[in-house]
Amino acid sequence: MSQALPIKTIHGHHCHHGWDNSIAAVERVAPGTTLNVVCHDAAGGHFTRDAGVEAVTSMPFERINPVTGPIHVDGAAPGDVLKITLNDFTPSGFGWTANIPGFGLLADQFPEPALTLWDYDRHALSPAVFGQHARIPLKPFAGTIGLAPADPGNHSIVPPRRVGGNLDIRDLGAGSVLYLPVEVEGALFSIGDTHAAQGDGEVCGTAIESAMDVSVTLELIKDTPLAMPRFSTPGPVTRHLDGAGYEVFTGIGPDLMSGARQALEGAIEWLVKTRNLPAEQAYMLCSVCGDLRISEIVDAPNWVVSFYLPRIVFE
Amino acid sequence: MSQALPIKTIHGHHCHHGWDNSIAAVERVAPGTTLNVVCHDAAGGHFTRDAGVEAVTSMPFERINPVTGPIHVDGAAPGDVLKITLNDFTPSGFGWTANIPGFGLLADQFPEPALTLWDYDRHALSPAVFGQHARIPLKPFAGTIGLAPADPGNHSIVPPRRVGGNLDIRDLGAGSVLYLPVEVEGALFSIGDTHAAQGDGEVCGTAIESAMDVSVTLELIKDTPLAMPRFSTPGPVTRHLDGAGYEVFTGIGPDLMSGARQALEGAIEWLVKTRNLPAEQAYMLCSVCGDLRISEIVDAPNWVVSFYLPRIVFE
Repeated sequence: MSQALPIKTIHGHHCHHGWDNSIAAVERVAPGTTLNVVCHDAAGGHFTRDAGVEAVTSMPFERINPVTGPIHVDGAAPGDVLKITLNDFTPSGFGWTANIPGFGLLADQFPEPALTLWDYDRHALSPAVFGQHARIPLKPFAGTIGLAPADPGNHSIVPPRRVGGNLDIRDLGAGSVLYLPVEVEGALFSIGDTHAAQGDGEVCGTAIESAMDVSVTLELIKDTPLAMPRFSTPGPVTRHLDGAGYEVFTGIGPDLMSGARQALEGAIEWLVKTRNLPAEQAYMLCSVCGDLRISEIVDAPNWVVSFYLPRIVFE
Repeated sequence: MSQALPIKTIHGHHCHHGWDNSIAAVERVAPGTTLNVVCHDAAGGHFTRDAGVEAVTSMPFERINPVTGPIHVDGAAPGDVLKITLNDFTPSGFGWTANIPGFGLLADQFPEPALTLWDYDRHALSPAVFGQHARIPLKPFAGTIGLAPADPGNHSIVPPRRVGGNLDIRDLGAGSVLYLPVEVEGALFSIGDTHAAQGDGEVCGTAIESAMDVSVTLELIKDTPLAMPRFSTPGPVTRHLDGAGYEVFTGIGPDLMSGARQALEGAIEWLVKTRNLPAEQAYMLCSVCGDLRISEIVDAPNWVVSFYLPRIVFE
């Protein structure tokens, strides 16, 4: 069905800040349409190849994370599900990772801004060079992908919600199919905040943030209850990372958040001691490639959260 | 070094219940020793091939999870690290998975006992058959592996601690190397609660619980601070599961525990609706093969926890 329709391009100037169901649609499409969407990075192009760390503090926070859209899908109504197939990504080749003061899993321990700029091969997608420290396998995906919520008014772009948004799910890459519950007429789909690489957790608060074009196909499933977003992946999700195994660090205790922080602290300490990374570089490295997993959540009162650092980045 | 020493076998009757640093060592070994340890399953052989669901309620909870040991490692002292190489596992071929009332991530929703028995090929380790529902790839590992804590008295075997114990980390299988902080003279190492398969989280509270022999090599790293257990894996950790991709379910909100529950509920609902599994079977299936991951933990105030159900179990 989608191949019978012309592919439309949604340009990047058709973007908005925050989620608001009163924002007028920039395009109306029939279910089954494939779109080529020009996506901004999370800072809307603020960082350039000559940016210094001062650019982190001058970020336009009121205009953070612009998303391209909204797209009105004909016939979509509350109670339906929008099926979003992520066909492919055309990355820009430039990216940034920052420690933004006040933001991130260890915000209390990393109060100073830090910035890493990335140049990567947008065609070969070979691992991105992180100074002398590491090489990061790339897997482009969309960090923010969502629908307008039923609740009126403008809602911050930062937290994800039932209707999606800033999900930052690493596996929403090419081939994955995302299902989101529709809460308003037309669904009002938007997408942006594309990432070239990220670990599960996005622990420092940013990934390899990178503008790209995304091809998506939007389909409609009528009258289907869905409490929370779900998705399927067509194949393995960590083969770009797992070839050399992992160094794993644990946090153990009755609070999953504290456990996650402990596990990450273990990884950073290990990187500082054994790989000679400055701590803030270790923190950013963990964010772009390391995975937070819940190893056990049943042996009361103590749960185990593990941080998996892929050894391939050092090879 | 380990190959020059004879391999000792520690028999299963040398076991204890709970962690207590006053329990006498059953063996004293030099650092570098390789041991063949006969491990009990978590119910100490209570479940047999003809067990019915009533066996769940008659479990001997006061003697739950016996661990074989403790092994005194010569020269180990507080402040050292015990390096434990998991060489290989010789599984029994029989296992069980139970929903134990009051135990598990959705204990409130599954108050009735349930039991699944497993017969699997202990040599080929081909996927274990779960009725008509699924086939579970196997990856044997030790659920409980730890050292005696400095704190005197007998401590419950159920929660894991800084010195290890009931970690239930799926990737502590053959080839992995675990590092635990030593808190008492001789380290006092014990191991048991072996599993033939488990997903990250062990969501229903049990895995494919299965007795096996484990070969471990114990080495000592003197005077090395270690806050929490860490380990390394020699290679990929999910290739037995990931070949056909995943169905993924999310939980979104300000509490990671609620997010984990939501994500699991989504998976169970999907299994009931699309695969016709009874809910308690779906819950046990999720526990033996599905993984809980933290997709993002920085987009305040809402975090995303995802439950990854491997599609290969249906092929």
